[in-house]
Amino acid sequence: RPRLDLLVLPGDGIGPEVVREGVLLLRELEPSLPAELHIREGAIGGAAVDEVGDPLPADTLSAALSAGAVFLGAVGGPRWENLPAERRPEQGLLRLRKEMRVFANLRPLRLPPELSFLSPLRLEILGEGGLDVLIVRELVGGIYFGEPRGIFVEGGERVAVDTLRYREEEIARVVDVAFRIARTQGKPLASVDKANVLASSRLWREVVEAKRAEYPDVPVRHVLVDAFAMDLVRRPTAYGVVVTENLFGDILSDLGGALVGSLGLLPSASLSEGGPHLYEPVHGSAPDIAGQGIANPAGMLLTVAMFLRHTLAAEDAASAVEAAVFATIARGRVTPDLAEACRRAHASGRCPAPEVLS
Amino acid sequence: RPRLDLLVLPGDGIGPEVVREGVLLLRELEPSLPAELHIREGAIGGAAVDEVGDPLPADTLSAALSAGAVFLGAVGGPRWENLPAERRPEQGLLRLRKEMRVFANLRPLRLPPELSFLSPLRLEILGEGGLDVLIVRELVGGIYFGEPRGIFVEGGERVAVDTLRYREEEIARVVDVAFRIARTQGKPLASVDKANVLASSRLWREVVEAKRAEYPDVPVRHVLVDAFAMDLVRRPTAYGVVVTENLFGDILSDLGGALVGSLGLLPSASLSEGGPHLYEPVHGSAPDIAGQGIANPAGMLLTVAMFLRHTLAAEDAASAVEAAVFATIARGRVTPDLAEACRRAHASGRCPAPEVLS
Ligand SMILES: CC(C)[C@H](C(=O)O)[C@@H](O)C(=O)O
Ligand SMILES: CC(C)[C@H](C(=O)O)[C@@H](O)C(=O)O
Repeated sequence: RPRLDLLVLPGDGIGPEVVREGVLLLRELEPSLPAELHIREGAIGGAAVDEVGDPLPADTLSAALSAGAVFLGAVGGPRWENLPAERRPEQGLLRLRKEMRVFANLRPLRLPPELSFLSPLRLEILGEGGLDVLIVRELVGGIYFGEPRGIFVEGGERVAVDTLRYREEEIARVVDVAFRIARTQGKPLASVDKANVLASSRLWREVVEAKRAEYPDVPVRHVLVDAFAMDLVRRPTAYGVVVTENLFGDILSDLGGALVGSLGLLPSASLSEGGPHLYEPVHGSAPDIAGQGIANPAGMLLTVAMFLRHTLAAEDAASAVEAAVFATIARGRVTPDLAEACRRAHASGRCPAPEVLS
Repeated sequence: RPRLDLLVLPGDGIGPEVVREGVLLLRELEPSLPAELHIREGAIGGAAVDEVGDPLPADTLSAALSAGAVFLGAVGGPRWENLPAERRPEQGLLRLRKEMRVFANLRPLRLPPELSFLSPLRLEILGEGGLDVLIVRELVGGIYFGEPRGIFVEGGERVAVDTLRYREEEIARVVDVAFRIARTQGKPLASVDKANVLASSRLWREVVEAKRAEYPDVPVRHVLVDAFAMDLVRRPTAYGVVVTENLFGDILSDLGGALVGSLGLLPSASLSEGGPHLYEPVHGSAPDIAGQGIANPAGMLLTVAMFLRHTLAAEDAASAVEAAVFATIARGRVTPDLAEACRRAHASGRCPAPEVLS
């Protein structure tokens, strides 16, 4: 079997706890995988600031760039909030994404119908099929990185500036990933923008229109970001694959995450072209529950499934992990973040009495 | 009684129908109001493009600037979508807001507990009190208006740029309005930003912190926009008054609108300092149902209530209108946008059989 180097970056808060579960799962699966896994650890975020004064130490970055895939737990916490901007843990994460060029952030919003009770939405809204939307977020461009940016003094007054900037090619490559997935999954594509106000959205729309010719079999719609935010709540099942720019994707994928019922259930994969991909659960470092052993590992385990699918093309193993995670929850074996919803569902006969792990 | 000139701008789609209902209500209330109302009409949006080739004709603008208050129906529709940017109906609206300097857009998200069944959220989430959040959106700055903006060619490739720009004073004045309302209503204030990424959000946060000293009695929190989008769905009742910049406000107030169950129920008021205020329901022009007499007038009637409150300081009349609108719906007299939710609620005994007006 070929060898695959994994770099694991536990980070802060509950990061180390969930990463540990992910690594256990990987070791369990390893014998039957198409590659031999070699796992190393590295420092990132607040932990790295404490160790070496930099949220993305040079050796972590070089290990990441030469790895076969990178797993990240979470970064950040109140301890590091008052540091100067460039030493804050989030900067380590943003730089890592940028340096790894992981431009396509896949954020699946999935809730199988037997778990619909976890959603804050009424059961009728999710219907027979549950929730199954994939948000593809551009991750290394837009207003997160555009220049000029900063706080300046003009005429005796402070003025703040951020720049939303996209080159045509930056749009095209992420839109292409979204089209490809929509085709593979046999689903329609929605492109979300604010073309009635933003120049960048008008270019975005034109690039999507141009790409369309290469994917004549994929139905495409353009939806304004404000209308989409509403739709995601009112009729999420109308969507399949959704592609959008960095900041809209940040807001919408977290909003979508809330519809799944717990951030603890959400995986993500950030794909590069040719280089290693970056895998991270969506939940943050959750400092309030860190170290208590009650963090939901599901987001990390589902993130391992995404690694199996996107790095190893081991689709069967990926689906088996996903099925196991959802089945465990459906049997009522849950962490505290899901306890209340499970008790409520149990009271109305929709699931077994929860056994809350802690 | 003093005289108050109202300029009414019906606009496009369902705009004229809902404005008509608003004017009927105003005439009904007029005898008991503290001012004598003189109502004139003006052209805006697609209707104005058709008439004179400009979505904001000069005489409409000057009438607006010298009015005591301005009412707007809605603008836009597929007929005008392919016009060059500067002649599109939305541009008329954006210019009107800018010229009137209505920097504080108040978007109440209200659903009294007896109407909780209209929300796509589970009943438990809205709880005993129903929904009652006020979003205060900065309306005349930020990325909607910043320069440079446009699509340029650089190194043979197209590049799009938008600029998010805020002067300290532009932030301070809208934050001040939000603090004032929070104090009056005895509610906490949440300021929503993306300070872990955007320079403008860092300035925003500093301005809020500085303002705090003037309102020591108002509890204040800073919330990141992605976390807030989640919270709005998971625990909206944790919020009172929310203040945010233009684009975040656009997305979040529409998202919040979805939680109320229908865009047709949402009013808005855009306040200036010293000049006339601009009142518009949140729903758009809804060209698909225009002219059929089935548009929900509630958004417009609740917008009239906001006029009574904010321009005339006629709080009793305002509350009476709001109570009447909600009571009518609770009795089951609804437009088609609410029919399905009412039928479902009726089936589970939570409201009378709906009588759908059409
Ligand atoms: C931590 C923060 C900078 C980050 C982002 O905004 O991208 C986070 O919210 C995310 O979505 O991964
Ligand atoms: C029509 C459009 C330009 C406008 C906006 O984005 O402000 C609308 O969405 C609104 O919220 O009033």
